Amino acid sequence: MDGKVRGLAILGSTGSIGGQTLEVVRSFPGKLSVVGLAAGHNHELLARQAQEFKARVVSCHSPGEMGASWLPPGCHVTTPEEVACHPDVNLVMAASVGSAGLGPIMAALGHGKTVALANKEPLVMAGELIMAEARRWGVDILPVDSEPSAIWQCLRGEERDVSRVVITASGGPFRQRPRGELASVTPEEALRHPTWRMGKKITVDSATLMNKGFEVIEAHWLFDLPWEKIEVVIHPQSVIHAMVEFADGSVKAQMSPPDMRLPIQYALFYPQRPRNGALPRLDPVEIGALTFEALEVDRYPCFGLALEAGKKGMTYPAVLSAADEVAVELFLAGAIGFTEIPDLVGDVLSEHHSVSTPSLEDILEADAWARRMAYAWAR
Amino acid sequence: MDGKVRGLAILGSTGSIGGQTLEVVRSFPGKLSVVGLAAGHNHELLARQAQEFKARVVSCHSPGEMGASWLPPGCHVTTPEEVACHPDVNLVMAASVGSAGLGPIMAALGHGKTVALANKEPLVMAGELIMAEARRWGVDILPVDSEPSAIWQCLRGEERDVSRVVITASGGPFRQRPRGELASVTPEEALRHPTWRMGKKITVDSATLMNKGFEVIEAHWLFDLPWEKIEVVIHPQSVIHAMVEFADGSVKAQMSPPDMRLPIQYALFYPQRPRNGALPRLDPVEIGALTFEALEVDRYPCFGLALEAGKKGMTYPAVLSAADEVAVELFLAGAIGFTEIPDLVGDVLSEHHSVSTPSLEDILEADAWARRMAYAWAR
Repeated sequence: MDGKVRGLAILGSTGSIGGQTLEVVRSFPGKLSVVGLAAGHNHELLARQAQEFKARVVSCHSPGEMGASWLPPGCHVTTPEEVACHPDVNLVMAASVGSAGLGPIMAALGHGKTVALANKEPLVMAGELIMAEARRWGVDILPVDSEPSAIWQCLRGEERDVSRVVITASGGPFRQRPRGELASVTPEEALRHPTWRMGKKITVDSATLMNKGFEVIEAHWLFDLPWEKIEVVIHPQSVIHAMVEFADGSVKAQMSPPDMRLPIQYALFYPQRPRNGALPRLDPVEIGALTFEALEVDRYPCFGLALEAGKKGMTYPAVLSAADEVAVELFLAGAIGFTEIPDLVGDVLSEHHSVSTPSLEDILEADAWARRMAYAWAR
Repeated sequence: MDGKVRGLAILGSTGSIGGQTLEVVRSFPGKLSVVGLAAGHNHELLARQAQEFKARVVSCHSPGEMGASWLPPGCHVTTPEEVACHPDVNLVMAASVGSAGLGPIMAALGHGKTVALANKEPLVMAGELIMAEARRWGVDILPVDSEPSAIWQCLRGEERDVSRVVITASGGPFRQRPRGELASVTPEEALRHPTWRMGKKITVDSATLMNKGFEVIEAHWLFDLPWEKIEVVIHPQSVIHAMVEFADGSVKAQMSPPDMRLPIQYALFYPQRPRNGALPRLDPVEIGALTFEALEVDRYPCFGLALEAGKKGMTYPAVLSAADEVAVELFLAGAIGFTEIPDLVGDVLSEHHSVSTPSLEDILEADAWARRMAYAWAR
């Protein structure tokens, strides 16, 4: 590793990816400096993190409720945008939930900060604008999600003559559940992911495969891949995260035990791969078999909705993402059933009329409209 | 692809890899020029190849028997060394059987020709000398064997912080055969490889796993890997050819349907990956499952003999390779049984006394000694 200490801002520091990012920071004392932390309502944890890592700026949803006495000396409370754009920050870990990350990500890119992107909704909502902003300022966007990170690792050193990318999906907890029973599955069952430990929103999105649709959209934007070159295959073990087939037919796969700290660390230290004794190692013999099945598209209507919205573009992906965010919230609150998630999202999408070549304002407006429609749908 | 036509010399052109190299040349008209061809006793096929590809030099074991009228105008018969070192040759495909390739390979390196290495015995015999010669003249040695090619592809673009390399082995045709029956298996059964179409010598070496031991030695030399970082795992489907684990725990695997034309083409066109419609494509869903099992070392005593000789170094690997070449020949002729292959090789090795830091002459002497001992063993 080179000697430079990388200055980090972590958006969503109290969430699952935020916490695992801090675990990685702890594993490499003196290599990474946590400059700023942004969270939502979990003030207590945010304050403890700020203390431990001597953060200089923090932000949260209700700064008034946050006792300033909890913060380390010199640390002040500000907006997520200012956390991301602090002069000592080199890299922003964007790990907020849902659409909240969009503003700070755009601000970070405008300030020339490298963005490590764990929060996929902003890219789903506004992929074209985000990528244009990154190109405009010559800034790198580094994938953190395990599947795009796998694609990125497979492309390393290659001349980009890609003929196909295969993203794997565990299939979630209901892969083998009789379809007739899906309507009555509970939030507790949906939150029991077979292979990954993750936040609630993404765990439900993994059960519906909406998350996999988002990843296809993410791969489309991050790697400038045409839709027809992106495939999804069910791979229940979540060991191979993605495969890239090159023009000559050779396929590279990236594999690792399902643990988000690896893709987090890869983005934080790229192009270096420092040793981390805390990470599990892959043992092919212990795994025994890696299996692959075709994706049953009828079982996962959210996946089809995501692809359709992604391909249509304009403000449809923003509506998809917003309607899904509300639908998952309502499902977790017991207000709608599991199979009503795609019903709600599909109905909101079919009501929507997009403007062509939308601005960021148009996208945020479509997002707000979709949220109103989604709540109204469930009433 | 760049516009340059690469000039090839093919050593072992009438063998399996030689023929498949010519298939690749046919797939890319105007991109590769066959300057020279070297073969053994198959004069007829050699002459047909020389005609088709307008070779300028050829060599064979008994030039006197080769009617000059069969050769294309201007083509002359010479030695394998001169075929390899012809001024118009940029790349030598070394695909002879057994130890025969050693001389021409050393000659090619000394003349600054890139060597694509399909013929692993020379590297087993004289790995240290070959690698030193390549470094001395600043020449690249490119792997063609599917497993080393996979390692090479996985290392592409990486900073070489490798923590482990896993080479896969199909396990050969006798993986599930009761051990008591191994003594009586026939040459015909040993030649029925479950996944690869290859020459006879390497197919028998695959049944004994001597070939896998050779590949460990090959990987040790080609990639400068310490022995303890090289593992072998049984993977009956032969789809993943090798995996590389980096220091951070991330694993890359290279996959493709078992077809030698892919690694051949990769070496011929590196760093480009031109499209070749003739090559099969991988379909993970059609494959269904990739499985892994620990290597039963007791079932494959040749593997242990190879590793031991490789680690001892000096002239032991040359003795290993020569004794095995004779043992396989005797087995195919019905003169010894299948389980006598390791008995013969083990006995010859245990009789051997090496000089330290052997010269090429010492190695060739050890090779000749081992052949005499091996024939005597079977008498």
